[in-house]
Amino acid sequence: MEFKQPIYPVEPWVITEQEFKKETNYRNETTFALSNGYLGTRGTFEEGYAFTEKEGLEGNFINGFYESENIRYGEWNFGFPLTSQSLLNLPNMKTTKVVLGDDQGEETFDLFSGEILDYSRKLHMQEGYVTRQVYWRSPGGKEVRISTKRFCSFACKNLMVQSLAVTAINFTGKVRLISLLEGKVENHTRTTNPLVDYGPFGEHLEGKRLEADSEKESFYYEGITLNSGLSMGCMGLHEIRQESKQPHRTEGKTDKAEKLAALDFILEIEEGETISLNKYLAYTSCLDMKKEEMEGFLHHTLETAMNQGMDSLLKQQRQYMDSFWEKADIQIEGDTALQQGIRFNLFHIMQAAGRDGRTGMGAKGLSGEGYEGHYFWDTEMYVLPVFAYTEGKLAKALLDYRYDTLPQARERARVLGHEKGALYPWRTINGEEASTYFPLGTAQYHINGDIAYAFKLYVDVNADDEYLKEKGAEVLVETARVWADVGCFAKSKGGKYCICAVTGPDEYNAIVDNNFYTNLMARENLKSALWALERVRALDEKAYESLVQKLKLEEGETALWQKIIEKMYFPYDEGRQVYPLDDGFMMRKVWDDSRIPPEKRHLLYENFHPLFVYRQRMSKQADAILGMLLYSNYFSEEELRRNYDFYQEVTLHHSSLSTCIFGILASQIGYHEEAYTYFSQSARMDLDDYHNNFYAGIHAANMAGTWQGIVFGFGGVRTNRGCLEFKPSIPGEWKGYRFRIGYRGSIVEVYTDQEQAEYRLLNDRPVEFFIHGKSMKLEDKGSRLYYPLGRKKKVAEALQENHLYKEEKSYENV
Amino acid sequence: MEFKQPIYPVEPWVITEQEFKKETNYRNETTFALSNGYLGTRGTFEEGYAFTEKEGLEGNFINGFYESENIRYGEWNFGFPLTSQSLLNLPNMKTTKVVLGDDQGEETFDLFSGEILDYSRKLHMQEGYVTRQVYWRSPGGKEVRISTKRFCSFACKNLMVQSLAVTAINFTGKVRLISLLEGKVENHTRTTNPLVDYGPFGEHLEGKRLEADSEKESFYYEGITLNSGLSMGCMGLHEIRQESKQPHRTEGKTDKAEKLAALDFILEIEEGETISLNKYLAYTSCLDMKKEEMEGFLHHTLETAMNQGMDSLLKQQRQYMDSFWEKADIQIEGDTALQQGIRFNLFHIMQAAGRDGRTGMGAKGLSGEGYEGHYFWDTEMYVLPVFAYTEGKLAKALLDYRYDTLPQARERARVLGHEKGALYPWRTINGEEASTYFPLGTAQYHINGDIAYAFKLYVDVNADDEYLKEKGAEVLVETARVWADVGCFAKSKGGKYCICAVTGPDEYNAIVDNNFYTNLMARENLKSALWALERVRALDEKAYESLVQKLKLEEGETALWQKIIEKMYFPYDEGRQVYPLDDGFMMRKVWDDSRIPPEKRHLLYENFHPLFVYRQRMSKQADAILGMLLYSNYFSEEELRRNYDFYQEVTLHHSSLSTCIFGILASQIGYHEEAYTYFSQSARMDLDDYHNNFYAGIHAANMAGTWQGIVFGFGGVRTNRGCLEFKPSIPGEWKGYRFRIGYRGSIVEVYTDQEQAEYRLLNDRPVEFFIHGKSMKLEDKGSRLYYPLGRKKKVAEALQENHLYKEEKSYENV
Repeated sequence: MEFKQPIYPVEPWVITEQEFKKETNYRNETTFALSNGYLGTRGTFEEGYAFTEKEGLEGNFINGFYESENIRYGEWNFGFPLTSQSLLNLPNMKTTKVVLGDDQGEETFDLFSGEILDYSRKLHMQEGYVTRQVYWRSPGGKEVRISTKRFCSFACKNLMVQSLAVTAINFTGKVRLISLLEGKVENHTRTTNPLVDYGPFGEHLEGKRLEADSEKESFYYEGITLNSGLSMGCMGLHEIRQESKQPHRTEGKTDKAEKLAALDFILEIEEGETISLNKYLAYTSCLDMKKEEMEGFLHHTLETAMNQGMDSLLKQQRQYMDSFWEKADIQIEGDTALQQGIRFNLFHIMQAAGRDGRTGMGAKGLSGEGYEGHYFWDTEMYVLPVFAYTEGKLAKALLDYRYDTLPQARERARVLGHEKGALYPWRTINGEEASTYFPLGTAQYHINGDIAYAFKLYVDVNADDEYLKEKGAEVLVETARVWADVGCFAKSKGGKYCICAVTGPDEYNAIVDNNFYTNLMARENLKSALWALERVRALDEKAYESLVQKLKLEEGETALWQKIIEKMYFPYDEGRQVYPLDDGFMMRKVWDDSRIPPEKRHLLYENFHPLFVYRQRMSKQADAILGMLLYSNYFSEEELRRNYDFYQEVTLHHSSLSTCIFGILASQIGYHEEAYTYFSQSARMDLDDYHNNFYAGIHAANMAGTWQGIVFGFGGVRTNRGCLEFKPSIPGEWKGYRFRIGYRGSIVEVYTDQEQAEYRLLNDRPVEFFIHGKSMKLEDKGSRLYYPLGRKKKVAEALQENHLYKEEKSYENV
Repeated sequence: MEFKQPIYPVEPWVITEQEFKKETNYRNETTFALSNGYLGTRGTFEEGYAFTEKEGLEGNFINGFYESENIRYGEWNFGFPLTSQSLLNLPNMKTTKVVLGDDQGEETFDLFSGEILDYSRKLHMQEGYVTRQVYWRSPGGKEVRISTKRFCSFACKNLMVQSLAVTAINFTGKVRLISLLEGKVENHTRTTNPLVDYGPFGEHLEGKRLEADSEKESFYYEGITLNSGLSMGCMGLHEIRQESKQPHRTEGKTDKAEKLAALDFILEIEEGETISLNKYLAYTSCLDMKKEEMEGFLHHTLETAMNQGMDSLLKQQRQYMDSFWEKADIQIEGDTALQQGIRFNLFHIMQAAGRDGRTGMGAKGLSGEGYEGHYFWDTEMYVLPVFAYTEGKLAKALLDYRYDTLPQARERARVLGHEKGALYPWRTINGEEASTYFPLGTAQYHINGDIAYAFKLYVDVNADDEYLKEKGAEVLVETARVWADVGCFAKSKGGKYCICAVTGPDEYNAIVDNNFYTNLMARENLKSALWALERVRALDEKAYESLVQKLKLEEGETALWQKIIEKMYFPYDEGRQVYPLDDGFMMRKVWDDSRIPPEKRHLLYENFHPLFVYRQRMSKQADAILGMLLYSNYFSEEELRRNYDFYQEVTLHHSSLSTCIFGILASQIGYHEEAYTYFSQSARMDLDDYHNNFYAGIHAANMAGTWQGIVFGFGGVRTNRGCLEFKPSIPGEWKGYRFRIGYRGSIVEVYTDQEQAEYRLLNDRPVEFFIHGKSMKLEDKGSRLYYPLGRKKKVAEALQENHLYKEEKSYENV
């Protein structure tokens, strides 16, 4: 494993682009992409460059707002989805042209003309915005400093704010600031998945309104999608600030053919003076309100924002970020590059998560068009645990989305022949299945177990019994029901419960029998359903009764679940004493990586027929290993090591979701060096663009996986035994690292250096936990205890051996 | 099982349509379809009715002549075919309008106007043509008798002949016979497979030439397909015969827009007189010659035919048919309905088989557009054995086609990741894979074993060592090589050779591990390859050396094959003591047929998701059972019975390829009543349109399966031990039945009645065989021997028990 040179300067809180280059523009658009979980906007420039498809992609998205097309199949079978869902690229309101001089000699600010005397763009992860500073000399010799600031408001989901300030360095004269609303947009990057065989997308938003109002200094667009029939509206209010308070003139115009609305602010600037334009931009859609209400709502939203003003909005932004970092930040002492990487990752997943309960989180967040903007299991298995332990409300909002789409999942279960229960779609936006290739789509039944896992985890870690009663139990029961129907007790397997014809997380082994991960998640899903019912009954008999009634839960059902739990079958190889991926795994051909030329060592399906892939004894990504990590409580360390060794041999890590999981398990079994390698590689995977496809959007799952790498990996945090456990370790390369986690109301800060791990209670909710199996307790806010590591541990052990060590002392609160 | 009422009068040699009805027209077009294995034409009328898509389909086909389109996939993976192949519907030259009267009062013969005083259409299976007699009174009161005759010449593959005679019953006057060449054609019946998701087909032949020559009384069309770029030409010569020898006038015209060429023959007819028009029609394509040569070739072909004349051509036709029936006819005494059914089946498969070595046989022959005209395994496993034992040259021609497409199969093997060998396509016309859905397409690797089986069978039964040397051995080795690469020796299965991720014949269990049938056919393919190499070496050392060189056969290869043969794994269920369909079969859910409404009990994929289907312990069709039938030599009768009983429980017979196979095995294990039921149902399946889709074309495999039902079933013929074996039985409903088979040069006629089976040698090649395991011999032409059945057998057994029976006497030649 070779590490890449950092692309950006290594700084703890900021990502800086020091120089503008066309070649790196496309990638940097993702780096500087902003979102608040509802709106997403790519890091494109105010100048509005006409880049080609390979140079850049303007992108503005509303989470959950999609367009459909008919899906074509060579051969259609019953239950194959007939319409696609694509997160739709929406009109852009960011473009602001800066035009210097009068009609005779106008010069428009443009990084490709004149001279760039100074340049920097920064993502301020602590503050939650992006700034850019350019010192530019026009071809005609006019010098200006241009500063921009941009953020998607965390306080108001519909709001995006952008300011642009121009300082005239060496001239006095006319300046025009032309603010545009560009409605002529279409999706472009289908081609980022070479396997998706659609034609070009074309424009899919039919304009219904297009206005530029020079008096109100606002513009407005309203459109409706051609196929999905969804309406959206977007509006911009403008605010000119000029030190000299000179009056300015505003001209508005629209061009229906080009779907363009423009506000032209004509100002006079004096040498040394700064003028600025604040743009308050908002989007909404019929998914949130009646379409007739959109315009009024947007206007109200923007008026409110403008009344609050930039400074106030920025303060709110900072407050939100402070609150987030307070809970979720991870500090790494002694490795600023990794520090930067992990914060970059946390920042991006935080901003990408849907938080209105009606939207999920795309595998690429809202940072690009990749994977059509679909939500996958990435959310529940990679991202959600991060939030569950840090910012519970984000986790809950994502679960709300799944609850919200339960009707579609129920319908889907019927299509798949299940008379009861709900089957969640493998990929979706609107809650309906959108995977066009069932072997790697609908066959991934484990999505049900994953979602159930996330519900259980959230409720457990946040002790949110109300949520269990209100929504969680229903989802746990409905998902469990499909598991109780999909398999059967097979005589030929000693009466064990077998699940046939599914695909596990590993997409190189499709349509298999008894995928280990699936069977494990199914069993745990059934357990959680039983647990949920019992717990709801214990909490609130009435709520229980009404749940049973609502779900028409029958007598025999829970007994059947219990039987399945007891009888669940798991493939086991006696020879290697490991759990193979599935029933057929050990019969497949020993994989010979050397047969694959290096340039083809990514997604095999691009260069090899699925049947060839299926027949090889290898794995694309963590699969069984992920199951063993989630439920490490069921396995001895020796067993984990044996399985880890086995899967280490056979896993190709052709998915970005793989290495972080291996790294965590490596920590658990004491393979510390491997753990560190996996971690470092995951931590800067996107920041240093290891996969060369960051342009298409973030890899949200891996980003979240690196938080897990520290907390679950080095920190050894587990809660799968129903209590909080730690197993601290620290990479030899680091001075120390710090993280905080919440568990059932308590917040614990953990600081680990080479000598010890320190556990400190940050609030006044007492907490019990275990370190390496030893029971511990922190009673009062601020109380701490220590666990020796490294030399200290060795000393302690030596003392212990000689009965000189006073254990209780060492762990005492100080 | 209920039997349907016969659609047509029950007659031994003829199928008669007694009355024309629009509602049954579409189906009857298939019944009266004609072919010679190269040309195919549906049983449409000379009047050229403009039927809707559900009422009829004009169809004229050249075997192997196809058009391509781009295939669309929701998600494409490497190796998925990019272009389709559709047998192209070609210009029609059969239409001949009969116009009575002059310009003031013309009346055109039309079954929907006037009055039909008498009507019959007949398929003459003994003679190989179709005739029609209509006695018609026009709305104006003119009465005519119209007689037509039509055949596709077996003597000249490019030639179709049609005559039309008009007799004026009650008038004298003008008659026009207008002969058309209709070039505006397109394929229609894609919709017969509801799972194929193409759009409308449209016209795909671009006209290059369109001529009508009134002097030569000929027309000509030449066109080229839009995508596949194949050229075809068709030409018609005309011959007017009139008793009174009055001169006639001929006008020719073309309409480019309508792609129509017409020859208008204007005649004067006298009351009582008959005039007739003989049309000599020919088709050819660039697949047989340079396109510049087509016109000349067609002209020469037609001149030759016309010079020979109708009578001579009909005589040749009869000779061909006589020769065919002499070898292949089956006579059933005491059941004319079944007699008619079996002859109908034999006639259709005989006429459908490609016989020029460059074409195969579509699953629907050349009788319609169903299955896009593709060739499947149906040819090798169902049809070819019939020819191998009766008309060897037809079998050989079909094998030639497979040999001819070996290069494409080699290329396909590379695409699937096999460095050596050839993998035949699941469905194809041009030798390239055309299946758009790999789980039920390319995954059916058994096609390789099936083709190998057919080569071995042909060579063995026809003792054609030359063919083995020339082509057979190469195919056997190349197919075997893929088997040697696709699987591996699995420690977890005791070092046995396992084959993962294939689909057997049963399409309700896809992408499985160790499909019993596939593993069996693979092992036998490997055995046949070793056998072929040894045999060629023994026959001709030099030929062997050059084969080894050509195939770059390496030292270790045959040793590996030998090892695989020894170590081949077969799934076995200890509980039921049966061979399950595959590794996962016994883990699937017990199938509950009652969950499926009767109207959905055909192709489940139309109403159920594939994953639902895959998870049920049931089978669409004969799969393992077919393997056990082909290699019954490896199984004890008890074992066969156990497996038959098991598969009887779990088989839904949703494929037309199923019942005939079950019937044969039922005979073998003494389930005579079931055997008879299965047989009767198969024998008239198409003639009585059991599947309600005969309009789309014949079910060639089942048709052939009924011959097998008699010969392999009731007759008990087997050659899988390397010798000829019989195990005669007779349904109680029959008086007797007779068939002939060829084996290594000998021709044996078997006549079985309720009392005995008689074996008679028809030529002078002595033959040894076994009846119920007892060795027999017929030395001289005409010699016979008997095997007692029924009462005779009981008497014989009683005598035997009392040591009074002289066995040798009973079997003696008489």
